[in-house]
Amino acid sequence: MLTLGNGYLAARGAAPEASADGVHYPGTYLAGFHNRRPGPDGGEESIVNLPNWLPLTFRPAAGEWYAPGRCRRLHEHRALDLRRGLYLRELLVLDPDQRRTRIRQRRLVSMAAPHVAALETTLIAENWSGRVEIRSGVDGSVRNANTVTEPGTCGRHLTGVTCGMDGTDVVWLTAATTGAHQLVAVTARTTVTGGGPASRRQVGEAEDIGQVLALDLHAGEPVVVAKTAAVFSSRDRAVDEPLVAAVEEVHRAGSFTQLLAEHTAAWRDLWNRFRLDVGERHAWQLPVRVHTFHLLQTLSPYAGDLDAGVPARGLHGEGYHGHIFWDELFVYPYLNLRFPELTRALLEYRHRRLTAARRQAASEGGSGALFPWQSGTSGRDESPSRSINPVNGEWVVDYTGRQPHANLAIAYSAWRYWETTGDLSFLAASGLELLVGTARFWAAAATYDPADDRYDIRGVTGPDEYHDGYPGRPGQGLDNCAYVNLMVAWALGRAAEAYAIVSRHPGAVGWRTIIVDDEERRRWAHIARRLRLAFVADGIPAQFEGYGELAELDWDRYRRRYGDLRLLGSLLQAEGDDPNRYRISKQADVLMLLYLFSAEELTALVRQLGYPFDPARIPDIVDYYLCRTTHGSTLSRIAHAWVLARTDRRRSWEMLLAALGTDLADPAHSSTREGIHLGATAGTLDILQRCYTGLEVRGDVLRLNPLLPDSLDHLDCVIRYRNRLIELRIDHHHVRLATPPGADPPVTVLIRDRPVELAAGTTVTVGLGLPFTEGSHPEAGE
Amino acid sequence: MLTLGNGYLAARGAAPEASADGVHYPGTYLAGFHNRRPGPDGGEESIVNLPNWLPLTFRPAAGEWYAPGRCRRLHEHRALDLRRGLYLRELLVLDPDQRRTRIRQRRLVSMAAPHVAALETTLIAENWSGRVEIRSGVDGSVRNANTVTEPGTCGRHLTGVTCGMDGTDVVWLTAATTGAHQLVAVTARTTVTGGGPASRRQVGEAEDIGQVLALDLHAGEPVVVAKTAAVFSSRDRAVDEPLVAAVEEVHRAGSFTQLLAEHTAAWRDLWNRFRLDVGERHAWQLPVRVHTFHLLQTLSPYAGDLDAGVPARGLHGEGYHGHIFWDELFVYPYLNLRFPELTRALLEYRHRRLTAARRQAASEGGSGALFPWQSGTSGRDESPSRSINPVNGEWVVDYTGRQPHANLAIAYSAWRYWETTGDLSFLAASGLELLVGTARFWAAAATYDPADDRYDIRGVTGPDEYHDGYPGRPGQGLDNCAYVNLMVAWALGRAAEAYAIVSRHPGAVGWRTIIVDDEERRRWAHIARRLRLAFVADGIPAQFEGYGELAELDWDRYRRRYGDLRLLGSLLQAEGDDPNRYRISKQADVLMLLYLFSAEELTALVRQLGYPFDPARIPDIVDYYLCRTTHGSTLSRIAHAWVLARTDRRRSWEMLLAALGTDLADPAHSSTREGIHLGATAGTLDILQRCYTGLEVRGDVLRLNPLLPDSLDHLDCVIRYRNRLIELRIDHHHVRLATPPGADPPVTVLIRDRPVELAAGTTVTVGLGLPFTEGSHPEAGE
Repeated sequence: MLTLGNGYLAARGAAPEASADGVHYPGTYLAGFHNRRPGPDGGEESIVNLPNWLPLTFRPAAGEWYAPGRCRRLHEHRALDLRRGLYLRELLVLDPDQRRTRIRQRRLVSMAAPHVAALETTLIAENWSGRVEIRSGVDGSVRNANTVTEPGTCGRHLTGVTCGMDGTDVVWLTAATTGAHQLVAVTARTTVTGGGPASRRQVGEAEDIGQVLALDLHAGEPVVVAKTAAVFSSRDRAVDEPLVAAVEEVHRAGSFTQLLAEHTAAWRDLWNRFRLDVGERHAWQLPVRVHTFHLLQTLSPYAGDLDAGVPARGLHGEGYHGHIFWDELFVYPYLNLRFPELTRALLEYRHRRLTAARRQAASEGGSGALFPWQSGTSGRDESPSRSINPVNGEWVVDYTGRQPHANLAIAYSAWRYWETTGDLSFLAASGLELLVGTARFWAAAATYDPADDRYDIRGVTGPDEYHDGYPGRPGQGLDNCAYVNLMVAWALGRAAEAYAIVSRHPGAVGWRTIIVDDEERRRWAHIARRLRLAFVADGIPAQFEGYGELAELDWDRYRRRYGDLRLLGSLLQAEGDDPNRYRISKQADVLMLLYLFSAEELTALVRQLGYPFDPARIPDIVDYYLCRTTHGSTLSRIAHAWVLARTDRRRSWEMLLAALGTDLADPAHSSTREGIHLGATAGTLDILQRCYTGLEVRGDVLRLNPLLPDSLDHLDCVIRYRNRLIELRIDHHHVRLATPPGADPPVTVLIRDRPVELAAGTTVTVGLGLPFTEGSHPEAGE
Repeated sequence: MLTLGNGYLAARGAAPEASADGVHYPGTYLAGFHNRRPGPDGGEESIVNLPNWLPLTFRPAAGEWYAPGRCRRLHEHRALDLRRGLYLRELLVLDPDQRRTRIRQRRLVSMAAPHVAALETTLIAENWSGRVEIRSGVDGSVRNANTVTEPGTCGRHLTGVTCGMDGTDVVWLTAATTGAHQLVAVTARTTVTGGGPASRRQVGEAEDIGQVLALDLHAGEPVVVAKTAAVFSSRDRAVDEPLVAAVEEVHRAGSFTQLLAEHTAAWRDLWNRFRLDVGERHAWQLPVRVHTFHLLQTLSPYAGDLDAGVPARGLHGEGYHGHIFWDELFVYPYLNLRFPELTRALLEYRHRRLTAARRQAASEGGSGALFPWQSGTSGRDESPSRSINPVNGEWVVDYTGRQPHANLAIAYSAWRYWETTGDLSFLAASGLELLVGTARFWAAAATYDPADDRYDIRGVTGPDEYHDGYPGRPGQGLDNCAYVNLMVAWALGRAAEAYAIVSRHPGAVGWRTIIVDDEERRRWAHIARRLRLAFVADGIPAQFEGYGELAELDWDRYRRRYGDLRLLGSLLQAEGDDPNRYRISKQADVLMLLYLFSAEELTALVRQLGYPFDPARIPDIVDYYLCRTTHGSTLSRIAHAWVLARTDRRRSWEMLLAALGTDLADPAHSSTREGIHLGATAGTLDILQRCYTGLEVRGDVLRLNPLLPDSLDHLDCVIRYRNRLIELRIDHHHVRLATPPGADPPVTVLIRDRPVELAAGTTVTVGLGLPFTEGSHPEAGE
């Protein structure tokens, strides 16, 4: 699969012909166009497949329109130029009349002009001369057809298509989305260089529009057809009439060469900001670049003003209907040190949906704010009630939407953004509301058991989607999930802390002051000290109460039977069994805690609840859960790569490589066709950026504690930290920090707890001393 | 005229009957809905008059629907409760059958729930009992009809109206705007308390929908009809289907009492933040509150996320088609110290239209960015080519749209926001681009005259709209306008300074680095030192080159003939004369400079250009222009009240009072029917807040230099300054500063150049010593 995007617009597919895997799936998606979940009644919207601007084909006079299957392909080569964000294709075709025609294409979705995309096609008649017709247009008859959807769901999300020509070389098409009636306008301009003066005529059906250009090819003489498209919608700001804007934009756009130059310059600036190098000749440099490229196609700087959120599959496909889950948890830590403005804008996306989240909480009889597990534009719950079992193709009841912990991920993200950036205006305006809304939800959800002076949180599910209830009670939730209860304990503390911070800066608050009275704060503090945790063994928290009493799976038997167990849950279901019966995990759940918190933080958190906790047992916790986890979610490997980084560097690196390969090495299995896995995409970069470098901002101090995997010689990157630009180069023995000249005062960086003063315009190199011994733990120190 | 608004939505008019001035003008406007300028071809949009949610009337059985004219009004009382944002009305009507019915209404546009408005009507049959029908609905057949528009212009801006009932007590109506096809949905829910069980039936035509409720009135027993409306549009964020959202919202909304409680609480928070008191018993406390109320109806905290700009007439009417001019210049200084987040958001509105401004500059053969004089949603030039002469009703060519100085106002605003708040992230991300775009436009517009080593800026117009060319050459512009050239000299300097600041914080920049090379900066610096200024006399800059050679108007003759000369330009035109011939000014032009710059700044600026300038001559400059100015713009008095504050406190106070009366004392003459004058509204508050207090932030220092007019005993207000909340109480002898407890370090405030340290949680009172002598100037110091 190939996608080109700019954070506003993404175009995938390979028209005019089917892609290499034989499936024809064009698709153009706009950020923020993931509205209501399609239902069995059809007709509603998911992520909307917009009118396709790509169609362009040709036919020699008296021949047939070129299409795969009709001509023989003598040669084909496709390449993606990551540096320039350019898709390149070369094709040599032989038609039934033995005419050999070479086709070269270059395609871009402009990173400089976010509404513009362009396709340049060079035609060379190799062994013939004669008339050729080129057909170029916009197709409004598209449907969403790249995912399996519920029976009866209609993949058609556009209505009221109207189209025409503007009397020049431009065709236009407008349509409205079926549910939200958002207007979309697509224009395409086709120009020709070479081949003599071209004649044009309009062609098209009711829902597609095109021009046919007739011109003369001379053997060996290239003719260049440039097609420029512009896309606007009624969601766009600073636009009144999308069609007027799209017509104006496509006329104003420069030549393909000019567009490419501006586009390349924009990508150059982006690459400068998102540099993350492990060495040009390192085998994994390319996947790192691909992930960076994928990430920036959805979360480019343009995404900040769009109110589009962090969709699980990026802008790359229709998987999960474009919905927003909790992937931001894996994305923001990376962005916080690269493009914190974007994190803030994306957290504002959540803040704008706080009213919806409050209603969700209220509708479930709760307080505060409950962000749904899956949501779209409106912020309401869009989690499906059924999903397909990929093993046997049966539709089964889907309880995953009952996960109530998305608000914890958001509260966590809001706090970490504040902690990393010190952005008080965010904390005072939006962050505090997100934190307090989450705290109130969980404080109300916790029930007090006076017998033990303990609070219980019952009937919820954690991230591990294999467990949605106790055996025989599917969908009814579990009690005292370690992930949930520890996150709640932490989040209650951060809400109170944020409240205290904001209260100390009375002028930082906009207008409506949130009041958290003493009684409420006392209750929060009490819950945060007395939530119940269960343990499966001494020092090993149970994923939930009763996890330790579940049956052990006969892993060997299942491995022998199925090989890959990533779909273990579906396999068990297909056998008529129930995953709820077993001590198995689809993905990191307890171990997510070690991903989100440093060992010091986690130790303090468990002890705060009045339970003993020895951080030296962390490797045992890791072992206990890791061997029971199937990584049915791509996010799981991120968490595990992180968790293992200090205890088992080799396995950590292997986990990272597997995660880097998610959408590259095994795209078929990973359903990459339905879109990339954005959380895993960013998470891999973050492992390199924060985990292997030991980079942390805590208590207003930037800390580094590098420990590279053996397979990495060095790591080069650039971070933005509180108005400073800091270049890091880390190898097994040294850390080099460099900052350009500037006015910011020196910053103190703790490198393995040694303070290093870094003044603007200087370079500091620090020796790391002896590397950690394999298997040692960060607490062991240097 | 009455308007209730919340920054998102504003509802005006007094349905079901005509207003006190006999004109029926309902109108509901949404922020950001000022699209394309209506043209003679009609059908396009200006500010859109949305479906009217107010219609509610009644009839006794066998009677006629109540409407003014059909019944006798025995009593009527209307009141606006500013504190609660509540419109109150009491009416006693006598119908032809001698039935006396008392009607009490309370109306609000919620400041707590921005999509919600509500109208509560209490009916009391005083001397009768019997059946009554109440008709309540939504009217989609509205037109814009509150302004004079070009002949042929169509006031109808809605199309495709569909409406219905949802089977309960809710009616709904949707429509699309004619040009931009934005969808609007309005729902209204009508409930009754008392009168026994009500029956309901649907009524309505194609474009309006209502319910008729039949119930029984008993003499003396009140029946309360509560109507709640919800408005959503396809511009709204976090909304997919406006109609779905509007139906949900109106069902969820609480009772009128609950809505009022939340609304009042929100207004209380706003009033706390926008407190500006001159004493409860002071005659001008009320107008100050009215202006604050008016301002916050358009620029409430909700306005920040709407991409709606600062429209000249607020959300209060259709004047100027809802367009954006330069009023923000008078609004931001006030907001910067109250709600700086809003200034930033509104400057982002401009930044989002930088591409349009660049295109505007290019289309006129220039460089950089040229913000049009009038613009709407798209940012393109919407200035009318013709306007009506209010004196004789003739349509005349309108050259005012050729004013190119809006970008200077924006650059000024961006810099002052930065200077006041120290918000580096704004400066780096958007501010610098606005400043550089403006600098580039003017650097390219300035032509070099090697003979004098001077730059000229020719063929432009300043703020004074009486002068758009030299006599006989209307519309061709003027040369070397003092306002323009001095603003340009200043703006070039600030652009270079901003560039230097941002360059010193390399990590503050997002991704695309603006490059201003040495050569460009040298050119800017050269122009900023060598722009030409003309003078009418020693030390008195000419409004433009040649101003001193124009004819003097026989002011006495015109005053005798016309009395009020605010429409002098139109009067002269109606006489067949040309304002361009005379030394007259419609509004502050040269004197705007004294509004925008302190005497120190202006002195430095003129001297920087190599001209002598004695600040002691400032009173002469003021005298020269003041006596030639007619204040044909409401903004003029703001500038003059400011300019006179130190030299002639009495006249300054009179100017301020006149400005405070703009939309109150003389609404007919001031065209308040077409909307309030937002710039003057905020400007009056700013005179009190900054001018009479001498409040200034310069070089990261907060300064106070109070000089109250004799008519003011004291001034109380609260400002937000860099996360601090500072309460100021100023009288003729003392300044009292108080801050609540907090964590911010003490701030040094210069009070008449004496440093005072203000720590959190303390109150400091400083004696002012002898007051300034009347007529002294700030330079004189203490």
